[in-house]
Amino acid sequence: MSSTWGETVKISIFGESHGKAIGVVLDGLPAGERIDFDAVALQMGRRAPGRDSTSTPRKESDLPQIVSGILNDTTTGAPLCALIENTNTRSGDYDNLKLVPRPGHADFPAHLRYGGYNDVRGGGHFSGRLTAPLVFAGAVCRQILQRRGIVIGAHVSSIKDVHDDPFDPVRVSEDLLTSLSSVYFPVINESAKQKMLGTIEAARLAQNSVGGVVECAVTGLKAGIGGPLFGGIEPVFSSILFGIPAVKGVEFGAGFGASALFGSENNDPYYCDGEIVKTKTNHAGGILGGISTGMPIIFRAAFKPTPSISLEQDSVDLTAKVDTKLSVHGRHDPCIVPRAVPVVEAAAAIALMNLINLQTGGMER
Amino acid sequence: MSSTWGETVKISIFGESHGKAIGVVLDGLPAGERIDFDAVALQMGRRAPGRDSTSTPRKESDLPQIVSGILNDTTTGAPLCALIENTNTRSGDYDNLKLVPRPGHADFPAHLRYGGYNDVRGGGHFSGRLTAPLVFAGAVCRQILQRRGIVIGAHVSSIKDVHDDPFDPVRVSEDLLTSLSSVYFPVINESAKQKMLGTIEAARLAQNSVGGVVECAVTGLKAGIGGPLFGGIEPVFSSILFGIPAVKGVEFGAGFGASALFGSENNDPYYCDGEIVKTKTNHAGGILGGISTGMPIIFRAAFKPTPSISLEQDSVDLTAKVDTKLSVHGRHDPCIVPRAVPVVEAAAAIALMNLINLQTGGMER
Amino acid sequence: MSSTWGETVKISIFGESHGKAIGVVLDGLPAGERIDFDAVALQMGRRAPGRDSTSTPRKESDLPQIVSGILNDTTTGAPLCALIENTNTRSGDYDNLKLVPRPGHADFPAHLRYGGYNDVRGGGHFSGRLTAPLVFAGAVCRQILQRRGIVIGAHVSSIKDVHDDPFDPVRVSEDLLTSLSSVYFPVINESAKQKMLGTIEAARLAQNSVGGVVECAVTGLKAGIGGPLFGGIEPVFSSILFGIPAVKGVEFGAGFGASALFGSENNDPYYCDGEIVKTKTNHAGGILGGISTGMPIIFRAAFKPTPSISLEQDSVDLTAKVDTKLSVHGRHDPCIVPRAVPVVEAAAAIALMNLINLQTGGMER
Amino acid sequence: MSSTWGETVKISIFGESHGKAIGVVLDGLPAGERIDFDAVALQMGRRAPGRDSTSTPRKESDLPQIVSGILNDTTTGAPLCALIENTNTRSGDYDNLKLVPRPGHADFPAHLRYGGYNDVRGGGHFSGRLTAPLVFAGAVCRQILQRRGIVIGAHVSSIKDVHDDPFDPVRVSEDLLTSLSSVYFPVINESAKQKMLGTIEAARLAQNSVGGVVECAVTGLKAGIGGPLFGGIEPVFSSILFGIPAVKGVEFGAGFGASALFGSENNDPYYCDGEIVKTKTNHAGGILGGISTGMPIIFRAAFKPTPSISLEQDSVDLTAKVDTKLSVHGRHDPCIVPRAVPVVEAAAAIALMNLINLQTGGMER
Repeated sequence: MSSTWGETVKISIFGESHGKAIGVVLDGLPAGERIDFDAVALQMGRRAPGRDSTSTPRKESDLPQIVSGILNDTTTGAPLCALIENTNTRSGDYDNLKLVPRPGHADFPAHLRYGGYNDVRGGGHFSGRLTAPLVFAGAVCRQILQRRGIVIGAHVSSIKDVHDDPFDPVRVSEDLLTSLSSVYFPVINESAKQKMLGTIEAARLAQNSVGGVVECAVTGLKAGIGGPLFGGIEPVFSSILFGIPAVKGVEFGAGFGASALFGSENNDPYYCDGEIVKTKTNHAGGILGGISTGMPIIFRAAFKPTPSISLEQDSVDLTAKVDTKLSVHGRHDPCIVPRAVPVVEAAAAIALMNLINLQTGGMER
Repeated sequence: MSSTWGETVKISIFGESHGKAIGVVLDGLPAGERIDFDAVALQMGRRAPGRDSTSTPRKESDLPQIVSGILNDTTTGAPLCALIENTNTRSGDYDNLKLVPRPGHADFPAHLRYGGYNDVRGGGHFSGRLTAPLVFAGAVCRQILQRRGIVIGAHVSSIKDVHDDPFDPVRVSEDLLTSLSSVYFPVINESAKQKMLGTIEAARLAQNSVGGVVECAVTGLKAGIGGPLFGGIEPVFSSILFGIPAVKGVEFGAGFGASALFGSENNDPYYCDGEIVKTKTNHAGGILGGISTGMPIIFRAAFKPTPSISLEQDSVDLTAKVDTKLSVHGRHDPCIVPRAVPVVEAAAAIALMNLINLQTGGMER
Repeated sequence: MSSTWGETVKISIFGESHGKAIGVVLDGLPAGERIDFDAVALQMGRRAPGRDSTSTPRKESDLPQIVSGILNDTTTGAPLCALIENTNTRSGDYDNLKLVPRPGHADFPAHLRYGGYNDVRGGGHFSGRLTAPLVFAGAVCRQILQRRGIVIGAHVSSIKDVHDDPFDPVRVSEDLLTSLSSVYFPVINESAKQKMLGTIEAARLAQNSVGGVVECAVTGLKAGIGGPLFGGIEPVFSSILFGIPAVKGVEFGAGFGASALFGSENNDPYYCDGEIVKTKTNHAGGILGGISTGMPIIFRAAFKPTPSISLEQDSVDLTAKVDTKLSVHGRHDPCIVPRAVPVVEAAAAIALMNLINLQTGGMER
Repeated sequence: MSSTWGETVKISIFGESHGKAIGVVLDGLPAGERIDFDAVALQMGRRAPGRDSTSTPRKESDLPQIVSGILNDTTTGAPLCALIENTNTRSGDYDNLKLVPRPGHADFPAHLRYGGYNDVRGGGHFSGRLTAPLVFAGAVCRQILQRRGIVIGAHVSSIKDVHDDPFDPVRVSEDLLTSLSSVYFPVINESAKQKMLGTIEAARLAQNSVGGVVECAVTGLKAGIGGPLFGGIEPVFSSILFGIPAVKGVEFGAGFGASALFGSENNDPYYCDGEIVKTKTNHAGGILGGISTGMPIIFRAAFKPTPSISLEQDSVDLTAKVDTKLSVHGRHDPCIVPRAVPVVEAAAAIALMNLINLQTGGMER
């Protein structure tokens, strides 16, 4: 595991926040797939910081350089490596983090894990910036899936206690997903977004931060993909979703809510829509026994509030082993959830392509 | 993936509910570990059906036969294979499932996945019975972990809308975990259990079923175990937890609740307890950046209600492609959550041993 | 790695020579494949001991019991577990091996590896007997391959300095491979076999042993299977072939001999046979750049002489750390090469199925 | 598999011969290891072309740029990515390869494998140039191993029919290996080298090419590293060695030669050298049952002659499906074996580190 994921489609993510560059190697892509790099850039842009006052004012040039695996904008079948250079990094902001760990960050356990040798500048390899290569890889995979009728889209389901409308798990449409997955801060109900923006702005003014939930849907996945036990859609998806920094919960379909239902409520009754078998409800989130049912895949990922806040916090001096106070200065998102939406979609695209490949081999059309 | 899991400690689970036997191969155990098979039997017994009216009256002899890897009750370092024979199976109960899939079960997607060749009797390889070998493997691993000071325990956190007291994420003790992990239907607050029993009994009488949540804690894990991105404790744990049939949600620490907190609330402040760095709260569930902080590991797994209910349900005839009705007879748990507690603990033990092995190699003492 | 192998088709081998049973879990098989268990038994019989004076007089009941994954003689898609019971074991023969390691055996390094806890009886998990489950798994896979036109066969290429005729790497026929792979001690030139039998018998009478080489061919594999670097046919095949006890060398096509050729000799010129591109020679053994060329796959595995000999040998007393003498009594093959032929074929079948699955997914027909 | 290798130490190699750059991500390195990049450059230089008339006159700047994972010349524990830019490429030389495949090259099977979308310029991802990142990764790993007393070195064992002296498998010294592994075209017997140079020069003048064998040794590896079946030193080493382009054979210890010995000759007798158990001979190449014996590890890899030769060869026109002639112009090594020596050493270093890590976890000192 570590920074490498996958069986048939494999990603290997590298880089540190304030190093030379970050990037990803994507191995196992089918050859002959034309990639629209404008569409890739659109996805990178959705994750990029500095979009509005809800995100950090850091400006990053997130445009990836293709190192290998692409010829004439088409996959060659060889590993695709993409590099994203780091610019506009001000390492001075993080100078005292090595000895005084920031609460809620990886600083302290990483210090022990790597004997103090890890790169702490900007969080190093633990930085949320490492989700940029993930979005890149997902943006490539989603185009290949889309060509086979599979569409992925997500929205900001909640920011703190402000909730967007949920997906209709039965009728969620490809059009809605296409629309959501092409904008920054996508929501189903625009009035919810206004309240969310207010909540985020209030947190920012209070030098505080807030978290939220991203809900994602996949349409067009035929029934019969996945498998029992550890080869199921849930374990495979979760093994990449929980790799996204700040994710502390993942649920599929009715999820935790299913635990409070009767079996008669939670079971999705079958019916025939002509030749196609469908379910009237979709508490299963399109997955039974780890296998797709043909109904939309629905899942949610919970993000904790950004740990970087300017408020003074209690910490310790790791050298002297005494208590101390810490104020984290520098530029921080009061809420990373809007920028996390394309990251969740990307993780779903990669996980799905790995699963489909296992069964159909190289995504033959 | 499929029915195989792990990198340094690997499990391969096999068998079908009504086949000859089920079992597991556990590869990568350190040699020279004495295994207390009475303690293993205790764990198997906690998962076994027929304990009380909350579980199915099927009687199973879940006592595992050791086929390999053990000599003089001690691990040899070679793969440990254990077999659990299937007895008392009445296949007739499931005769019509092949063509009329049970709502909420894997019947329909598995039929498509395997072209109708899968063994449908009792759910086949998708049966909850396949958790017995997982409990076996976990019961072996937890003894090896325990010898190194690591203790795992879980309780029934909720049944439908009845909640047990939660773990104190800071002060949860080894003694509490030891006590919880040695009984059937463990709870922290006995009065909650009485209400839970009432809820389950009411569901049973109504020919219905209920779900619930299992909360698990790990003490004694030192800080510095795990890693960034896909090698973190959360992705590794979730990849095995979501492999447990009926699990639809997994969260660590404050989990989904963290998404509704301010950063200032969710961040766990550090302090020095002598030479040891601790946190005053533990919303992180003992994990930051995928790495253990030295505080207790806390996580929850949500179980959907048992899909097998005797109430009549809507289904379809897969051959004729017409709507039909289905009543599932036979013996079914109105609630599998109490029996799922040792399964969750087992998954945690295996996941943890795999992670520790990656860093310390063969669990050298 | 360890006793587990594979990505899409996975095997997990377990058991010790003198334990209760040995066996294998085979995960990732396609569903709906009818298995001819008489053909499986034929393969098991080819590997079984006691066929003639060239092999050990130990009688083993190598008939496997199917534990899971098969219904009505057809694969269900769930993991296939097979058990082979151990009988007729006389542990007394090996009593002093623990402290006085047999030269050429794993005794000494395994003692250090497992801290003395490994099962030494009959070689334990290191016994050549563990190739029986490998033959079983291969016998299942080869039937699935054969249904797709791929045939595997091998012969005893040499015993000590006696050589059989080599395969014609261009014209080797499916008929020849079918014929070779159905008999014990297959050779192309029967007169070579008579000399080989003489060499083995002479070694037996001298209480000594001899080694040899197995040459294997695969026909019917279309061009385009495999991949560059570590995904090539050579690395994948060798990673399972070198897992066979006593194999000390593996070569493909002209192999080591290619190192003594000019490029103009070793390069295989192309020509068109109607629409099909073929090569006039086949020094490549059907593999270029790790990918199949459509010509027969040809490879050889070198087996060292059986280390168990009755002649007195120099060893050490591991406890006293002093030199001593050792005579290994008991029943031993003077040459295991004839019995190794189906093992090599089985390894090829499993490796090939794993590779094809990666590209075509579940061996869809 | 594909271009990714490893369990605890993982490498992911990317790039094409005439693309922007080639490189490698090396994941799983221990933190805090100081890397001498001059020593890395020395290894890169040993593999680089243009050293003398035996190798191609192409000039490459093989100096790697470190993208991540290194701070103050020390490993951080995060993935190490290194890039090597491609310069001085003349794509015109390869223009007609797409339709007329070069005999002995991957051109034809790769064309089928990737549906004609693979990058054929200079061999693309199949180019021997892709061994440069492998040498880089190995050069890092060998320093970490060396710090623990493990030394790796190899020599040109043969060029066509000219043989160097072999390693003394019992007495091969750390000093010899250190000396061999720091020069270009290392041999044990300098007079053999003169004959080899003559053989290579003659092939060059004849517009032909020759192959050869590289023999490698490892000292300082303690007994007890490795495991049975597929976790043994032989399968793990071979799975990376056969990933090196042009390798067609691998053998350990006496290798194929062992197949012609009596058991009494091949078995290595034990004796006590004080407290340490050693063997008088080392036909086993330091490996029994897949586990190190404490004696030097000895293995050989056979390289076929460079397929690129200027002599006219028979090929086919893949479009018209007719026979044609082909002359490969451009700059080609008449023999790549001298440059392959550091590649073999690198593969051994990576394989060994992966194996040791599995047992000792993160290479703790």
